[in-house]
Amino acid sequence: MSENTKPTSSQTAQESARDFIYSLSSNPLPGSERIYVQGSRADIQVPMRKISCNPTPIADEKDASNWEQNEPIYVYETAGAYSDPNKHIDVTEGLEPLREGWITERGDTEVLDVLSSEYARLQQIDIRGEAKRFQKRVRIRKALKSKCVTQMHYARKGIITPEMEFIAIRENQNLEAIKSELLRKQHPGESFGANIPEKITAEFVRTEVAEGRAIIPSNINHPESEPMIIGRNFLVKVNSNIGNSAVTSSIEEEVEKLVWSTRWGADTLMDLSTGDDIHQTREWIIRNSPIPIGTVPIYQALEKVDGITENLSWEVIKDTLIEQAEQGVDYFTVHAGVLLEYVPMTANRLTGIVSRGGSIMAKWCLFHHQENFLYTHFREICEICAAYDVALSLGDGLRPGSIMDSNDEAQFSELRTLGELTKIAWEYDVQVMIEGPGHVPMQRIQENMTEELEHCHEAPFYTLGPLTQDIAPGYDHFTSGIGAAQIGWYGCAMLCYVTPKEHLGLPNKEDVKDGLITYKIAAHAADLAKGFPGAQVRDNALSKARFEFCWEDQFNLSLDPYRAREFHDETMPAPAAKVAHFCSMCGPKFCSMKISQEVKEYADIKAHGMKEMSGKFEELGSSLYHASN
Amino acid sequence: MSENTKPTSSQTAQESARDFIYSLSSNPLPGSERIYVQGSRADIQVPMRKISCNPTPIADEKDASNWEQNEPIYVYETAGAYSDPNKHIDVTEGLEPLREGWITERGDTEVLDVLSSEYARLQQIDIRGEAKRFQKRVRIRKALKSKCVTQMHYARKGIITPEMEFIAIRENQNLEAIKSELLRKQHPGESFGANIPEKITAEFVRTEVAEGRAIIPSNINHPESEPMIIGRNFLVKVNSNIGNSAVTSSIEEEVEKLVWSTRWGADTLMDLSTGDDIHQTREWIIRNSPIPIGTVPIYQALEKVDGITENLSWEVIKDTLIEQAEQGVDYFTVHAGVLLEYVPMTANRLTGIVSRGGSIMAKWCLFHHQENFLYTHFREICEICAAYDVALSLGDGLRPGSIMDSNDEAQFSELRTLGELTKIAWEYDVQVMIEGPGHVPMQRIQENMTEELEHCHEAPFYTLGPLTQDIAPGYDHFTSGIGAAQIGWYGCAMLCYVTPKEHLGLPNKEDVKDGLITYKIAAHAADLAKGFPGAQVRDNALSKARFEFCWEDQFNLSLDPYRAREFHDETMPAPAAKVAHFCSMCGPKFCSMKISQEVKEYADIKAHGMKEMSGKFEELGSSLYHASN
Repeated sequence: MSENTKPTSSQTAQESARDFIYSLSSNPLPGSERIYVQGSRADIQVPMRKISCNPTPIADEKDASNWEQNEPIYVYETAGAYSDPNKHIDVTEGLEPLREGWITERGDTEVLDVLSSEYARLQQIDIRGEAKRFQKRVRIRKALKSKCVTQMHYARKGIITPEMEFIAIRENQNLEAIKSELLRKQHPGESFGANIPEKITAEFVRTEVAEGRAIIPSNINHPESEPMIIGRNFLVKVNSNIGNSAVTSSIEEEVEKLVWSTRWGADTLMDLSTGDDIHQTREWIIRNSPIPIGTVPIYQALEKVDGITENLSWEVIKDTLIEQAEQGVDYFTVHAGVLLEYVPMTANRLTGIVSRGGSIMAKWCLFHHQENFLYTHFREICEICAAYDVALSLGDGLRPGSIMDSNDEAQFSELRTLGELTKIAWEYDVQVMIEGPGHVPMQRIQENMTEELEHCHEAPFYTLGPLTQDIAPGYDHFTSGIGAAQIGWYGCAMLCYVTPKEHLGLPNKEDVKDGLITYKIAAHAADLAKGFPGAQVRDNALSKARFEFCWEDQFNLSLDPYRAREFHDETMPAPAAKVAHFCSMCGPKFCSMKISQEVKEYADIKAHGMKEMSGKFEELGSSLYHASN
Repeated sequence: MSENTKPTSSQTAQESARDFIYSLSSNPLPGSERIYVQGSRADIQVPMRKISCNPTPIADEKDASNWEQNEPIYVYETAGAYSDPNKHIDVTEGLEPLREGWITERGDTEVLDVLSSEYARLQQIDIRGEAKRFQKRVRIRKALKSKCVTQMHYARKGIITPEMEFIAIRENQNLEAIKSELLRKQHPGESFGANIPEKITAEFVRTEVAEGRAIIPSNINHPESEPMIIGRNFLVKVNSNIGNSAVTSSIEEEVEKLVWSTRWGADTLMDLSTGDDIHQTREWIIRNSPIPIGTVPIYQALEKVDGITENLSWEVIKDTLIEQAEQGVDYFTVHAGVLLEYVPMTANRLTGIVSRGGSIMAKWCLFHHQENFLYTHFREICEICAAYDVALSLGDGLRPGSIMDSNDEAQFSELRTLGELTKIAWEYDVQVMIEGPGHVPMQRIQENMTEELEHCHEAPFYTLGPLTQDIAPGYDHFTSGIGAAQIGWYGCAMLCYVTPKEHLGLPNKEDVKDGLITYKIAAHAADLAKGFPGAQVRDNALSKARFEFCWEDQFNLSLDPYRAREFHDETMPAPAAKVAHFCSMCGPKFCSMKISQEVKEYADIKAHGMKEMSGKFEELGSSLYHASN
């Protein structure tokens, strides 16, 4: 399958993007199959990716059916129906609303006849938007009066929702099905006080959500999303950012970027679109997204006041929050911690305020000499979130934009305010995570995690990077990937990816993939280091394939099977090379893996003799050395 | 300048490579100039790269000469004469032997009339090698009888050599010349017990070398190399590997890879060439290399016995060591710690023995049921090294090849033997570093460092990665870069790079660059985290340029100016964009940096007012929030 999509001369960019999306669903990753593990009821069907492995040839055994069988392994899967050739995909219809039954059966919501947001109502009847509109009308829900519909609310009431059970099964990655002791072997982790059980149960999920240590972003108006969890006692998650720019991309191209992100493992996606079609674009994205969608509502609010920061107001943002909540946004980034009194703390920084949302709010506060309206109206924000189950991602508007500015007074003052706001959100049973930096050198990363845990009461941490240095624009996916791996290990629950274009330009599709693969690597490094149960299965399977020169399995088990194969084939393109018992690095004469296999055979044959010899040498000890001189 | 070299139709690959090498010297990195800082004598000329910065425009000041001046910064420079347009480059002549005077004035060496290695003598008269021979004859030196010519020997005698003074100046990176307090500002490091002084003095270099905590790879037969040091109290260094493969590259292409590596910051280079022309290739590389060259002599020894491991012997390797020492190899990797008794410890590993040298020695030991001849003849190896000042890089032949096999009995048994061998080498005043893994998950990396420091008596550690996971072939520069940054921080002195082709194929030029940039990032992350004096200057300068929208400086100050510019220009190619006070990510309306500058101006103007307001808010405290509801 070609990994690129370029319109042919007769195609529009839209048609090309749509073709590409459809092509993906008939092209699962090589050796892979999307399977479903059923929960306690038939409508809990938890997706996983099953990667099949080839048998290991046994010397002198010509009959391949007698070769050593290698069982398949199972990995976490985020691509939704797009990776399932049995599902019908139609972007104009959107995905199946798999959670709809669960939401309705709880009986605590109503379907709205009229949208609650004035802006959204105007959009419905605006003729200019007709061509770009997602035509299929979906039912819009809201909590019944005096009802709270958040997963935290259910959790605190002791209710295990289908979402929680789904997540428990998902996080275990079918480890129970793995029979091989070799594959299951894993080093103990160092988890810095996290509390990861041997097996994730639905009850454990419930407790973690009830305590606020984990969140399940799951707006009742985004029933298409597959439940997932963000918390430090679960697998480390990765977020992808997309967003059209004023001039370039079509709505279909944004949907393409979403689908592309899920193919490479994005656990959530933030739609940072700006410009005229922001409302329509979001609708297309949510209706077609199997993963939770986050936004920064202040961006759209600013568009509504023509970009004039001073004209922002609580009324504009309130309507925007409701508009987006009724579309199905799963989490909002709100910069409610940028207090007026903190703004002057940034004046002597090397790089001031680098968060867009943070700088918008800072400017507003200074202009009006008033406190941040997101802070003063925070309880109202919580009420909105509680009515749709929108999680709050408390933005770090004062995060450092350079190594110099890391861990300073402004940053940590805001962090403590985010901790206060967390407590308030929890009063409303609103789920909360905390956003973090930014630019931080390695020796100062852990402090970010410990401060967050302490001041934000163990709410999940969600960080951008952090970038460990400022000298490598063009490679900031990697400068930040180093920091991301570390903070993930220390307990950060979700890592917001950074692409190679960071600080320089808008990421294209290849950049999105590079950013995601880099961050999947960082997250996996953290999962291994924390000792998450089953995290090492894939490493073990791939290493076994490597030692056995099973090239096909090495490709299929890798994070990017296409690149692994392409790199191998650059030097050894012949099909025979795929079964060769050596590779291009050393050739047959020098191959250490080959020699090592011979060593193993020698050792097996001469086990007894070796033991004797070994005993002998122990006696001789280091005297052997001196004897030779 | 084009960053690629492809032969035009009328050129051979050799001619093309040579043209490329010459083109580099007339194309220093943008904004950069190679300068020299003089030491206590005129022949100590320490190279640095000076990066010039543009002035910062001042609002309402049209006269550019009144703008705020930004001083240049200085960075460590490894490209030798190739980055100096004033130097004449001729690869058939080799580089200037800048250390020759220092070596001769010590009066402890003699020029040999006849090469000591039989194989080397045969090469001299072999007509088949004529076309490929490096024609210029250089003087070959050896220590006078009963003399030791190692830097460690001088250091222990209290002698500060010109090499040591050169290094002291080099490591300080001209920090004294930086006037700006802002640029000099730096966070305290966490150095895990390292002992990094505020300023590196020649006496400090001497002490570190005398104590064995640092080495100066500097064969008396490689006077072309610019002195550099490897030790945990110095800047973290990066090694690049090159090596022809049997079928593909010409000798000139290997020299091209060397020069290319130095352009991207390689501190040392290992020539892992195999095949027929191994002796000639090495001669070309050493004569043209401004950085120390390392080899694994057992590879050539194996060639000499037609790849039949069993036929290896002390006599063959001894002649090879002498052959290479007289060519000027600066350090030898010898797998002297792979003891017969350790080999069975690898039999139950998932991936056996993955070091080529290690597996060769293991196979030999098992076949002969004898102890490793590199171990039994180790004192003779030391005698050879002492006569030319070849440093020993004690190879980790039993390093783990998978996450599963990390930190196991085989690995740590060998490490303890390397510690014994270190003590023996030090008896001969031979400089030693210790090679390390390999594949290690994050939570097990620090143990590698602490074990090494303890058992190898603080000899410098030199690690490959470590790779923090096994699931991302095609991206192992990055899976290992995470581990490299960490172990560098913990105290590892030199990081051996890994390219994206690791495990899959032979790196091409682009892979070499990707590997090096990744590892320069890892090393810099470690330098910052350790708090190495002056390490943050470049970050500060680049961040300042970023905040001031000085795009040209951002490009020039970055590790890869070409890529930074290319990425920027993809979205905003117009020259005017280079001076635009915003970038393509947000556009003018949303730009946080721009808003932040406005915030700063507001804050400056209203400093007094703000202070009042701030006091007011402190009084109000959190009551403000509640009041709003």
